[in-house]
This record gives sequence, structure tokens and C-alpha cells, in this order.
Amino acid sequence: MPNKETFAKMIEHTQLKPYTTSKEIEKLCLEALQWNFYGVCLYPTWIPLAQSLLTSSPIKIITVAGFPTGAESTQIKCLEVAESIEKGANEIDFVINIGWLKEKRLKMIEAEFKYLVELSFPIPLKAILETCYLNDEEKKIACELALETGISFIKTSTGFGSSGATVEDIKLIKKFFPHIKASGGIQDIRLALDLIQAGASRIGTSAGVKLIEALESISQ
Amino acid sequence: MPNKETFAKMIEHTQLKPYTTSKEIEKLCLEALQWNFYGVCLYPTWIPLAQSLLTSSPIKIITVAGFPTGAESTQIKCLEVAESIEKGANEIDFVINIGWLKEKRLKMIEAEFKYLVELSFPIPLKAILETCYLNDEEKKIACELALETGISFIKTSTGFGSSGATVEDIKLIKKFFPHIKASGGIQDIRLALDLIQAGASRIGTSAGVKLIEALESISQ
Repeated sequence: MPNKETFAKMIEHTQLKPYTTSKEIEKLCLEALQWNFYGVCLYPTWIPLAQSLLTSSPIKIITVAGFPTGAESTQIKCLEVAESIEKGANEIDFVINIGWLKEKRLKMIEAEFKYLVELSFPIPLKAILETCYLNDEEKKIACELALETGISFIKTSTGFGSSGATVEDIKLIKKFFPHIKASGGIQDIRLALDLIQAGASRIGTSAGVKLIEALESISQ
Repeated sequence: MPNKETFAKMIEHTQLKPYTTSKEIEKLCLEALQWNFYGVCLYPTWIPLAQSLLTSSPIKIITVAGFPTGAESTQIKCLEVAESIEKGANEIDFVINIGWLKEKRLKMIEAEFKYLVELSFPIPLKAILETCYLNDEEKKIACELALETGISFIKTSTGFGSSGATVEDIKLIKKFFPHIKASGGIQDIRLALDLIQAGASRIGTSAGVKLIEALESISQ
């Protein structure tokens, strides 16, 4: 079991509700500071506010692109990524084009990955698979394309799909990709620890505080 | 009760699942042709395929922008709208920035509406409120801003929120805005007819065929 400090450094404290207000972003950032989380994950529009609150802290600002459907054109995803980099994002989580994957239009996925990596390097990119809609073969193919093209992380879920990260998925993805962010409704410390045990090195969750408090209580 | 032809001309037959493939878009377009629906609503990436299938038919191609969270910057929404117009979209449904509305940053909402209208005119724009997350005062304000800035339609819901169109919402919106597209999980003909009765002139639904078959059976 990771200790509290190690666990906190795996948490991407997340606020991606469409009706988020600045009050909630302030709370998110203050909690990230208090618990020394790895980062905060929020919509691009909140980057300036997060920057002002996290100044001179090591906490990363993570944002999203092509979110949560991944159905935007590659051009739009590139423009979103460029805008977020300009605003000062430290990492960007984008959703892959799920329809292309299902239709095996792999050249198009590969080209999208390459454009995004080229544009954002050295800023780490996470490819969100939305695993709940994929079969194992599709997950494998997406991981392989991500590895070949220089994507930094595989992220399992958006939180808008029919379900989030599972231990089985982390084990499967780990066979093909080294760095995994588990995400999508992770509210329970036992699940979070199982996902880490299975190979996840980041946990994306809106319940970072609840999780770390639960870790404290079971560690005692 | 509208007759079958009138009802069909209110239906925007919709396929916005993130994992949509071309097979499903083909089915959507063929059904729209068969039943003579008003239009098809799909992600921008599918516009060329829809065009090839709907050539020389009066069926409109409707797409989305800032979908389904509305949390993108105004710049990104403008780029999405511009791209979809270039591809040949006939109407565009965009999600408003819900956080700005909650914080009463009305100048920013107004500016976004103005930019989008200016860019897309004369192509009709629908502002999606995502009513499930708004109180009545917020719905009223959004309708008033939309009316002032030349938005063509208010659309209630994305289908990704916690609930879809209600009769109460249509009645409320109708006080402030003339043209309404009811949407979000409309699968039942009684609900569809009640929404029309309350003031909706378009129904966005993935169940267009089911609805019109149900209308036929209750009309007999």
C-alpha cells in the first residue's frame, strides 16, 4: 500500500462538470495545495484561475481536449491543444476518435496522435480510450498506436461514459503501455488501491480528498 | 395531434454516440430519407458521408459544436462552427457556457453568441441550454441573450446531462423565445406530442423511427 505522500502524488484532482464555477475551481486548487496532490484537472477556460491559485507550487495543471466524445476533427483537437499550451497547461488529456478505432481507420488515428504529439512536445499527452466502449482488441490497438507515436499516458475514461476504470482494464493495458491514468468515477479507496496495484500510476478523480482521508483511516 | 407528414418534418434524427461508426450514420440517413424527416443531427466528422447519402434530398444536415459540455473557449467554438460550415452543415447546435451563466458573466455569453451568429449567418444556430443544470432564472436569462443576439433556436438538452426536455421547461422557454428544439432522451410518442403541444417545433431524438411508427399506430 502506498503511503499518504506517495498516494497524493498519484492524484489528479478533477473538476470537469459542465456547470463548474470559479468557486469550485478555487476549492479544487486549495485542496490540491493542502494535500499536495500531483495536479488538478479542469477545462481550459479555468487554466488562468488555477495558475493564479497554484503559483510557485509544484502542482500541475492538467486540461482536456476533444472532450468527452473525441468526435471532433483532428484539426479542432490540435487547435484546442495549442490554445491550452498557450494558456499554460502542463499536461493535456485528449479523447481518441472511438469511431475510427471501431472502423479500423488506424492511419487516421495514427496521424492524429502524431500531429498532437508534435504540437505539444515536451508537454505530456494522455490518450483517453473510453474503455467502456471498446473490446480488448481495440484497447490493444489503441495502446500500440499510442506507444509508437510518443503519447505519454493511456487514460481509461472520461467520466461521461457508461463506466470507468476497472482492474481488468488496467492489467490489460499494462501489457501494452507503461504509464496509465485510471479514471472515471473512482470514489472508493479500495478500488483506487486495486487500480494502482494493477499498474496505474495516476488516479484521476473528483474525490481526491475523500480517497486520501480513507487511506489515512485504513493505514492507522 | 400533428399528422404523420407534419410530425416527420419536426424530427431531427440524431446519432451522437461517441462510438458511432459509418454504418450507423448510413442507417440514420436512410431512415431520414425513408420517413422524410426534417434533418439528421451528427458529429461534424460525418458531414461528408451524410452529404453523399442525402444528395438532392431536402433533408438538412445538422451538427454540433462545443458539445456536450459547452466549456470550450469562444475561440474554439468559433473554429468548430467555421469548420462545419465549410464542410456544408445546414444548421449548428452549440452548447452555451453553463459556468458563465451560473456566475452571471453575461457579457461573455453575449459576446460568444454574437461571434457565433456573425460567423454562421445565415446558417441557423441553436443554443443548447442543458436545462437539467439550470434554474428558471438562468433559463430566462439565456433565452433573452439568445433572442437579442440573433440565435435561431433554443435547444433544451444534449442527451449527456442528468435529464432531457420536460413539458414545464418548454412552457417556460416559450415565454421568452419563439423557436424551441426539445431534445435529450425523447423515446416516447406521448412525451414528444406533449412537448410539441407545449411549444416545441423540433424534436431531436435518436428514436425518430420509433416515434413516427408509434404516431401511426395511435392515429389509426
